[in-house]
Amino acid sequence: LNIGAAARAMSNFGFRHLRLVQPYDAAWREARSAVGAQAVLAGAGVFPSLAAAVADCTLVVGTAGVSRRDLKHTVRRLEAAAPLIRRRLRAGHVALVFGSEKFGLSNEDLSHCHWLLRVPTRAGHESMNLGQAVALCLYELVRDSAATRRQPAYPRLANAADLNRLEQVLGGLLLDSGYFEERTSGSSRLKLRRLLRRMQLEHDDVPLWLGMFRQIRWRFDKE
Amino acid sequence: LNIGAAARAMSNFGFRHLRLVQPYDAAWREARSAVGAQAVLAGAGVFPSLAAAVADCTLVVGTAGVSRRDLKHTVRRLEAAAPLIRRRLRAGHVALVFGSEKFGLSNEDLSHCHWLLRVPTRAGHESMNLGQAVALCLYELVRDSAATRRQPAYPRLANAADLNRLEQVLGGLLLDSGYFEERTSGSSRLKLRRLLRRMQLEHDDVPLWLGMFRQIRWRFDKE
Repeated sequence: LNIGAAARAMSNFGFRHLRLVQPYDAAWREARSAVGAQAVLAGAGVFPSLAAAVADCTLVVGTAGVSRRDLKHTVRRLEAAAPLIRRRLRAGHVALVFGSEKFGLSNEDLSHCHWLLRVPTRAGHESMNLGQAVALCLYELVRDSAATRRQPAYPRLANAADLNRLEQVLGGLLLDSGYFEERTSGSSRLKLRRLLRRMQLEHDDVPLWLGMFRQIRWRFDKE
Repeated sequence: LNIGAAARAMSNFGFRHLRLVQPYDAAWREARSAVGAQAVLAGAGVFPSLAAAVADCTLVVGTAGVSRRDLKHTVRRLEAAAPLIRRRLRAGHVALVFGSEKFGLSNEDLSHCHWLLRVPTRAGHESMNLGQAVALCLYELVRDSAATRRQPAYPRLANAADLNRLEQVLGGLLLDSGYFEERTSGSSRLKLRRLLRRMQLEHDDVPLWLGMFRQIRWRFDKE
């Protein structure tokens, strides 16, 4: 299940080279028949050892939970690790090494790693689902930090003329219906005006509101 | 399986309020007995409708694949959506709404949403595993953008004095062993010096190297 989930996340984020070290035969057979990431699974390599799997890589990054206190390696948070990995990807292959969900990476595995990254999970519940951990790491690698600075597309909002037209129609209706009293209608109009401005009405919705109020007005005048 | 995976991701990133709308009884029973996120699952609420589930929320954000062309809502990339959601979380409850993995959110579901977010998956394979999608969204909400700017902790590197000591010992060994010839040893020394500087030796590893070379020297002198 984890192999399939990892392959699907790879496919989602455009990564292609899945390499498995001594996978359980049954799990690997089952994963290959799973839907969703056929190309990644069909191209996956199977290796007898981690050393063989990462032989052509110029950077090998292991993944670790924070709870392990015996780590001899430099450990970087995922957010800080990603820019370093992206830079190294321009110069050669980089391996991200994930251990089994139950046992993680052995000391022998870790000895092949240049450094480690950790996903910043909450102290007290660090252990992640393997497929989710793979998805997070790959997402962080393709994440577009510029997107957070780009102004998101806001819908075109109603302008003052739109709001004044609404105010006129709704205000008249409220006056005629007795909601506004004649003598206080000045300050009530101001309240209505502020109310209409607080609601961030979209420009394209103004005709809908005008239509509704005009219909009510029409019924009202017919009575 | 998806309910359990979503709950585990919530627990990993410190989110507590899981709300389910008409879950399949069997799936929900099974999820509650899963390991890894007991607190989240025990506190989960079950609601008869999406409207009831989000009644106390001041912002309701739906999740959508990019492939749907019929969306009437503003759609924001996850990276851009997260800062907006964080800001709104200071003022009230925010709901992140996920549909079933197979069918996504219905038009009726979408009508309860203020806007939508999408995970920036690759065109051609947008559809994500639900548990992975939940994990990504929550990770992005707690992600520490300052961490990418903070200098990662580098190990203390060997200084020039360390490297000179190494050069002396190794250089003497190479000369005595005949690797350096007497007449070219000047330029060879420079090559060795550059070699030692290219390898980014850590300060704490210098005594190990010195010890190894001195041991070889000792054997050599004994012969």
